[in-house]
Amino acid sequence: MAQDEPVRQRLLSEATRLFADRGFESTSVQEIVVAAGVTKGAMYHYFDSKDDLLHEIYGRVLRMQMERLTKIADGPGTVSERLHAAAADVVETTTDNLDDSKIFFRSMHLLAPETQKTVRAERRRYHERFRDLVDEGQREGVFRSDVPAEIVVDYFFGSVHHLGSWYHAEGALSGAQVGAHFADLLLTSLRP
Amino acid sequence: MAQDEPVRQRLLSEATRLFADRGFESTSVQEIVVAAGVTKGAMYHYFDSKDDLLHEIYGRVLRMQMERLTKIADGPGTVSERLHAAAADVVETTTDNLDDSKIFFRSMHLLAPETQKTVRAERRRYHERFRDLVDEGQREGVFRSDVPAEIVVDYFFGSVHHLGSWYHAEGALSGAQVGAHFADLLLTSLRP
Repeated sequence: MAQDEPVRQRLLSEATRLFADRGFESTSVQEIVVAAGVTKGAMYHYFDSKDDLLHEIYGRVLRMQMERLTKIADGPGTVSERLHAAAADVVETTTDNLDDSKIFFRSMHLLAPETQKTVRAERRRYHERFRDLVDEGQREGVFRSDVPAEIVVDYFFGSVHHLGSWYHAEGALSGAQVGAHFADLLLTSLRP
Repeated sequence: MAQDEPVRQRLLSEATRLFADRGFESTSVQEIVVAAGVTKGAMYHYFDSKDDLLHEIYGRVLRMQMERLTKIADGPGTVSERLHAAAADVVETTTDNLDDSKIFFRSMHLLAPETQKTVRAERRRYHERFRDLVDEGQREGVFRSDVPAEIVVDYFFGSVHHLGSWYHAEGALSGAQVGAHFADLLLTSLRP
């Protein structure tokens, strides 16, 4: 398996590039396997379909973000420190993987309903862990309680999911700088 | 012209419904004219293409929002009051026209590059007027100045543009309630 891994990675990165350049709708499986230099058989060894590739492009970013969030949320520090670190981190990992999330939010509605449901559930788990941090601060009286934690999460992740529409790696601010600003705005907005 | 207006409106609302139900990519001009009960000739009297319809679906919302923003921004009240009103208003008008903006953000990348450029310029004018309010408050010392006004605008409008992915008219909160929460979070986040 270990020696097969590069093929899987190559398929994912070529699919990401093609979906970003010409859209998920206009890219065929044939074009992806040609770009990755593998046979269709090799591709179907790893992925069931084009849907499956799109799902995995976003899924691997989401799993990585979930691992990092869990580590930060369960780690040391006050709830303000942990929420700030978690907010800054998800901005930075999103800008580091901008094509993946851009493609995904643009094309998610084209996935089969069953796949959409799975992805929504995966993302919900991420949002719930993040919301737990807001809840924790509200219970402790460190954060304001007059805005539902759920709305705070929707507000913040709107900004994160929309990074793909304006953020550029060559822009004035790095992903880490944008992350620090977003986290500052979030934490300040929660002051009681 | 006045008596022709209903045809134009019908074309826009049927196109909105079809794009929302089955996607911009999968809807043909033929299906739109059949749904609206008009001839292709009538449709081409009002719109140059399917691109033009999509552009106008979002364009009419954006023009309405721009008019309202201008009125609020140039109106009476402190800069905090005007920014709060403007923020709450754009959330409410977005939830009131949710299909339009949902379709648009999903399909904008499919528009011809020239049309995309036009829409971006239109939206930029809206964001600039909003940013001017943030600037005004920063100059007066009412808002913090350690976060660039541009980043504040990107942060806030990410949340607005993403309403389509979670807001439901049948949900727990009305558009006006979400608008009030978002505006409160924005204003609090700007406290010096």
